Amino acid sequence: MTVRVGVLGARGKVGREVCRAVRDADDTELVAEVDAGDPLGALEESGVEVVVDFTSPDVVMANLEHCVARGIHAVVGTTGFDAERIATLRGRLDDAPGVGVLIAPNFSVGAVLMMRFAAEAAAFYESVEVVELHHPDKADAPSGTARRTAELVAAARAEAGLGPAPDATRTSLPGARGADVDGVPVHAVRLRGLVAHQEVLLGGEGETLTIRHDSFDRASFTPGVLAGVRAIADRPGLTIGLEHVLWPS
Amino acid sequence: MTVRVGVLGARGKVGREVCRAVRDADDTELVAEVDAGDPLGALEESGVEVVVDFTSPDVVMANLEHCVARGIHAVVGTTGFDAERIATLRGRLDDAPGVGVLIAPNFSVGAVLMMRFAAEAAAFYESVEVVELHHPDKADAPSGTARRTAELVAAARAEAGLGPAPDATRTSLPGARGADVDGVPVHAVRLRGLVAHQEVLLGGEGETLTIRHDSFDRASFTPGVLAGVRAIADRPGLTIGLEHVLWPS
Amino acid sequence: MTVRVGVLGARGKVGREVCRAVRDADDTELVAEVDAGDPLGALEESGVEVVVDFTSPDVVMANLEHCVARGIHAVVGTTGFDAERIATLRGRLDDAPGVGVLIAPNFSVGAVLMMRFAAEAAAFYESVEVVELHHPDKADAPSGTARRTAELVAAARAEAGLGPAPDATRTSLPGARGADVDGVPVHAVRLRGLVAHQEVLLGGEGETLTIRHDSFDRASFTPGVLAGVRAIADRPGLTIGLEHVLWPS
Amino acid sequence: MTVRVGVLGARGKVGREVCRAVRDADDTELVAEVDAGDPLGALEESGVEVVVDFTSPDVVMANLEHCVARGIHAVVGTTGFDAERIATLRGRLDDAPGVGVLIAPNFSVGAVLMMRFAAEAAAFYESVEVVELHHPDKADAPSGTARRTAELVAAARAEAGLGPAPDATRTSLPGARGADVDGVPVHAVRLRGLVAHQEVLLGGEGETLTIRHDSFDRASFTPGVLAGVRAIADRPGLTIGLEHVLWPS
Repeated sequence: MTVRVGVLGARGKVGREVCRAVRDADDTELVAEVDAGDPLGALEESGVEVVVDFTSPDVVMANLEHCVARGIHAVVGTTGFDAERIATLRGRLDDAPGVGVLIAPNFSVGAVLMMRFAAEAAAFYESVEVVELHHPDKADAPSGTARRTAELVAAARAEAGLGPAPDATRTSLPGARGADVDGVPVHAVRLRGLVAHQEVLLGGEGETLTIRHDSFDRASFTPGVLAGVRAIADRPGLTIGLEHVLWPS
Repeated sequence: MTVRVGVLGARGKVGREVCRAVRDADDTELVAEVDAGDPLGALEESGVEVVVDFTSPDVVMANLEHCVARGIHAVVGTTGFDAERIATLRGRLDDAPGVGVLIAPNFSVGAVLMMRFAAEAAAFYESVEVVELHHPDKADAPSGTARRTAELVAAARAEAGLGPAPDATRTSLPGARGADVDGVPVHAVRLRGLVAHQEVLLGGEGETLTIRHDSFDRASFTPGVLAGVRAIADRPGLTIGLEHVLWPS
Repeated sequence: MTVRVGVLGARGKVGREVCRAVRDADDTELVAEVDAGDPLGALEESGVEVVVDFTSPDVVMANLEHCVARGIHAVVGTTGFDAERIATLRGRLDDAPGVGVLIAPNFSVGAVLMMRFAAEAAAFYESVEVVELHHPDKADAPSGTARRTAELVAAARAEAGLGPAPDATRTSLPGARGADVDGVPVHAVRLRGLVAHQEVLLGGEGETLTIRHDSFDRASFTPGVLAGVRAIADRPGLTIGLEHVLWPS
Repeated sequence: MTVRVGVLGARGKVGREVCRAVRDADDTELVAEVDAGDPLGALEESGVEVVVDFTSPDVVMANLEHCVARGIHAVVGTTGFDAERIATLRGRLDDAPGVGVLIAPNFSVGAVLMMRFAAEAAAFYESVEVVELHHPDKADAPSGTARRTAELVAAARAEAGLGPAPDATRTSLPGARGADVDGVPVHAVRLRGLVAHQEVLLGGEGETLTIRHDSFDRASFTPGVLAGVRAIADRPGLTIGLEHVLWPS
């Protein structure tokens, strides 16, 4: 049985990759491609079951209002969901029992695994640092994923009762020890040729554990989107974070 | 409250490290050091609660018989436990309710984490290979940990319904693609200067996830031993594998 | 002053990248694009100074005969140059004083640097192994670059009077210790998501040196081609290997 | 023919390793072990040809004055040589033709190779950064070797006419982009379990080159000391830097 999928933002760089992935998979069918200017009504006419939305913060709420009201599930990669938007969305989902929406800040399965493993391992290690490495056209340092990783790791350390990591540095050049995110040093490398990479280094007496994610290609997020598409019909209400789809509990 | 610990094999290379770690920790006390030739009776005289056994397959069963019969818990790193020995041990523990024994093939927390993460991630990746790297005085290739990792990964792939990993190799020098352990290629590097290291590489469309464990020092297994010492009094019966102590379920 | 460049094989995958790079560089100008079926005469009409040939073994000798006879320098990435072809080419260059031809098996500056550094470091290390990692659609294992690296490293070890690297392996699964290339173990990893990567690991008492090259993109060879284009007019006769252009001695 | 070696600072941590290495090597003989309080006269009585000095800035100049005046060559790992000390030493060597002294800030062959390779590769890459990783008891960040590497790399870039590396960072947490050493970002990781490690990452269009040195053990500097011991009798006058011994030009 295949899932009938519509893509919102279908002509954007990300949207095109989603369309290709939906077409290529055996168990999904691409029935609607919608972009700015196209009528949303095309969705229900196509018999779509799940939409994937990679549009913009300006239009995503209207898109979701339209879909949820018509019983269409949604998998959303568009950013900009603050507490107010999430509350609004929950309200609409309360009025549409059986409809599911998945919002995920990161659809890369590898990035989600890296963050989860790092947080789980953190309780067992005295030291932890994050090194992220990206192409030099990136505007923010460190990356959002690196910050999020550091926050999750810091929370896991706190829960395990670990104090600050040891650091005897007395003389230092400014910046040498990285940025401080909740007590976890985060280092950002920018290098022509790289794409998007991150290492979490954990260290204890006589050993280290390193978890590294390398993203070589824009297409690396599509397996996560497809996992969401396959699962969302069985998860009514709002789901935030790909991890809940990957490891349903 | 401190745990009163005795060490069997206390004058061996590993035993000495265990003694040092038990002495250094705030919540454990070293009350007996026993080695070949010493009477086991010294254990009960010292009021020991938990013994740590890093001796040899020749004597470990007698050691455990002695301890279990006297209500002393045991944490065992000695090798050679086959099905028959395990059955014998279970029988003795049935007669000694409340006594706990932990047997672990690997007390390195990092190695145990690596194996678990690799097995969990395996379901999400098309490809997986293992590279282990050791000093050149090692007698077996690949290492026991690498074989065990490959077996766990292969089992996880099978459970997830994954077929063989893609490999278009048509012309190959013998050995180039590594050893085959349940379908998972395992490569063994031997290099002067190295200690004990392992990488599990998982790859999917456009991304890879790498989990690496570096062991720099013999002392790296002592945190796992201490974790066992702290937990075993609350785990009556036989426990096999450090993971059950690290993540009690 | 700009160099006037013609590209032979201009509509192939590699040729198109070369055309783009020649167009984008400040000091080169693309004056002719020739592919199968196009007359070679277009070259001299365009006032070309240097041609870049990424065609096929079938036509490259005719292309070079045409160019050398007309005083046009050539930078050649096409394969298939055996001793006979090289002798023929030298003969033609003897008759055309001042004309330069560069043939290179690998135009990646990084790969050439890796091979040179590995060979130079080899004399100082007891142990050395090569690990190459590629996408799983690759037909040969190990890669040509890995074999060439191992040969260069083995030659450097022999010259330094080093014997076999230490290896105490007594029990081994077949293939675990990799392929043997002149005594240097070479391991080939195949993983979905990867592009083309190689590590040379050198080890001595208490330390290791690792030289790693990661190629993420087809475009990574164009800087080497441009370096050849800029240098070849000043190197009359036949030059084999990009290294002679990168480090003229 | 063996070289007769004396060690100054023979009972220090480093000196003991030097003594062991001199004893173990086939072509060197340990004939004198001198430490604080011992008379220097023991050196000439032993027939020493080369001394190795790992003492302290307080006594090294007196040690060298004594040795040079008696025709004894010296290999010096003691720190604190400023321009004035070097001038003084040159003066004494002028009065002792045939005597050689080697001063090296770093006797690790791997570290010296890493620095040289990084500087040579720097001319070919748009981007370069340094990541050093050490145990958390280290007092300075970044390490002296990392700073020296960055300086050498920066000089090589300047000579090649390269401008600043690309970096589009607009929003950054303080420290995320590392310390600035002559325009080269340097990141310092501090992790329990690590010893001393450094990576130089170089990146260009579609590819990266990484040179990594791992030092696992104090003993890793002894091959460099022995290389100095073997070479210094043939290098009269003052030599600064192990590289001149490793690659005599």
